[in-house]
Amino acid sequence: MNAPLATATTAEDRRSAPLVTPPFDAAKLDELLDRAGIDVVIASSKHNIQYLLGGYRFFFFDHTDAVGVSRYLPLLVYFKGRPERSVYVANSMESWENELGRFWVPDVDTSTWTTRDAMQRAVDHVKKRLEPGRVRIGAERAFLPADAEEVLRQGLPQAEIVEALAPLERLRARKSAAELTLIRQASERVVDSMLSVFSSHGPGATKAEMAEALRREETQRGLVFEYCLIAAGASQNRAPSDQRWQKGEVLSLDSGANYGGYVGDLCRMGFSGEPDAELEDLLAEIDTIQQAARKPIRAGAIGSDIYEAGEAALARSLHRNVTNFVAHGMGLISHEAPRLSSRAPVKYDGEDADRPLEAGMVLSIETTMHHPRRGFIKLEDTLAVTEDGWEAFGDHGRGWNRGKA
Amino acid sequence: MNAPLATATTAEDRRSAPLVTPPFDAAKLDELLDRAGIDVVIASSKHNIQYLLGGYRFFFFDHTDAVGVSRYLPLLVYFKGRPERSVYVANSMESWENELGRFWVPDVDTSTWTTRDAMQRAVDHVKKRLEPGRVRIGAERAFLPADAEEVLRQGLPQAEIVEALAPLERLRARKSAAELTLIRQASERVVDSMLSVFSSHGPGATKAEMAEALRREETQRGLVFEYCLIAAGASQNRAPSDQRWQKGEVLSLDSGANYGGYVGDLCRMGFSGEPDAELEDLLAEIDTIQQAARKPIRAGAIGSDIYEAGEAALARSLHRNVTNFVAHGMGLISHEAPRLSSRAPVKYDGEDADRPLEAGMVLSIETTMHHPRRGFIKLEDTLAVTEDGWEAFGDHGRGWNRGKA
Repeated sequence: MNAPLATATTAEDRRSAPLVTPPFDAAKLDELLDRAGIDVVIASSKHNIQYLLGGYRFFFFDHTDAVGVSRYLPLLVYFKGRPERSVYVANSMESWENELGRFWVPDVDTSTWTTRDAMQRAVDHVKKRLEPGRVRIGAERAFLPADAEEVLRQGLPQAEIVEALAPLERLRARKSAAELTLIRQASERVVDSMLSVFSSHGPGATKAEMAEALRREETQRGLVFEYCLIAAGASQNRAPSDQRWQKGEVLSLDSGANYGGYVGDLCRMGFSGEPDAELEDLLAEIDTIQQAARKPIRAGAIGSDIYEAGEAALARSLHRNVTNFVAHGMGLISHEAPRLSSRAPVKYDGEDADRPLEAGMVLSIETTMHHPRRGFIKLEDTLAVTEDGWEAFGDHGRGWNRGKA
Repeated sequence: MNAPLATATTAEDRRSAPLVTPPFDAAKLDELLDRAGIDVVIASSKHNIQYLLGGYRFFFFDHTDAVGVSRYLPLLVYFKGRPERSVYVANSMESWENELGRFWVPDVDTSTWTTRDAMQRAVDHVKKRLEPGRVRIGAERAFLPADAEEVLRQGLPQAEIVEALAPLERLRARKSAAELTLIRQASERVVDSMLSVFSSHGPGATKAEMAEALRREETQRGLVFEYCLIAAGASQNRAPSDQRWQKGEVLSLDSGANYGGYVGDLCRMGFSGEPDAELEDLLAEIDTIQQAARKPIRAGAIGSDIYEAGEAALARSLHRNVTNFVAHGMGLISHEAPRLSSRAPVKYDGEDADRPLEAGMVLSIETTMHHPRRGFIKLEDTLAVTEDGWEAFGDHGRGWNRGKA
């Protein structure tokens, strides 16, 4: 899409404004910023930088931020209604990416190595492009280093700094076809990797060994491994450790891994031996709740419908006292909009429990049983909302997967 | 080692203080904090948290920080001279690690999910343990989110917040035998992975394909891949891309990958075909500079001796106008103390150019030639300082490595 013209644009502005094509819905972002009272947003988290740059993530700092006496701090400066004024302040090494034409923004500054440098450059750019008077700057304060915010406050003393999490998150809530493809790939490959770990490990394997095996399986499938939560036997402890998976014990694998930055996050169950009737019943109980929660999902349904359906099924469950149900949006990070529960531990103004679901939203649905004798039993599934229902990604391996004999 | 007793410790304090055994040199940290005028340090970077917790890194957030409406923020609070007052403020999921006995600190708080939560808990703990009066708190401000620093300032208005980078970095400068083993393993496995990529790729392979192959090779060897810089042919562009390696072209692989958090970071050269005499001469020129820079290295030598030796050799080089020489410390991050150049772009008070090297310091030495016709040619080596010289880690594959025919 083309950049919308700001209402206050003059003929002179129009003549001088280069044609830019943001890779996101700039009109939607402008509306979200307007509602949040933000004039200029300075994004600094890797996920929002990736989104606003159309999928770009600087490879050098994908895993680690620290370098030299400071750290990597990419800053994307966006002026509401004026995408042609956007600036990307980058690390010096990103000049190679600039040569390769990877940026849509008209101005790319690859002169920085530290957090303070980077924000000073952003401030300089904002000053050149800002009309005089008071301005509200939206920042991601959990992802903005304290020393960089100090440079911002000193450089633009007339600015009020407000939190930009909600508008940036809402911008990402509905996924494009390309994003859905990435999430589907991530999900399928995570489950394939888990099935491979179950079938290649048996009694005596440690949780640490199996978590490492999963990391390698996911990497071989082109994913970037993020984590593996793993519990075995009656224990509810999900950290990799030297605990061994024993004959007759359950094993849960719950892993996050990304493909092109988009997270696959699912949980599947394994058993060393032949699962007995009780175990089959327990997993069926969990699946009943998971399937009940899927039922209401379609564009136009209300976010809280999912919780209502899941919790109604949970209330009928024999093990309701040791079982819980959760549903949340996911995408570039593992918990993001839509935020479906009105009881989330952290309140913010982007809550979706009372809003309609939209086609292209992606949901993670989880039912977890903390069985005191049989252990940690869980299914976590990924569903994309469609116009008339949902589509599950990586929806295989949901029964008991046998370990190596 | 046991915790040193603070000079102001009372008999009552000694009776009530639990015996703690920090896994680092607490006396050295106390001296460094004292010199920096810091009473309490609140570490927040992953590398310093790992160091202060004796190698611990929370697996769940090793790759990604973002979660829900905020991000992971571990905080290690250390009172100068009073290690028994230390507190680790962790994410809720780290209760599993606490159950496994992974923490030496007497007080572990696993109640947090957001940056503001975490700092509020740290402030509460500091308040309980702090004597009245003015206090100087050392923070890693490039690794401390702005919203968390705001909670700190509001919660402890009497505190002055100062930068703690230099004392924490100096604490890490001399590596233990266990740390040296990790860096050696990381270095050897990085080079092994590179040799495997050279020999399994030939004309037509893209830089992106080879960078991905290196990621997989490193992962299969138990490393955590961080990045791959790659240049092919006459180009000086080091970003992975769809550029193809052609017959008769050079290929440089420069990769960072960590083993247990410790970085291996080396550069090796490949050639598609049989390298001609000119290429052999160019790499020999680079090697001559690299070897000259190794000569002065031993405990007691002055940091700047390395630069002097390297630059003297560079001055005699035919290609001095397109070649540069760099040496720097490395360990948990790829550029850390000792800081050997007095011309580093960022000044800070931990400079080592005029200080003696110590056994156990680890150095990265790099000579880079930007040849206008033959391309990017570089060697980067890793050396550990010993009492009477140095030891090179991953010191193989330093000639022209042939690609697949």
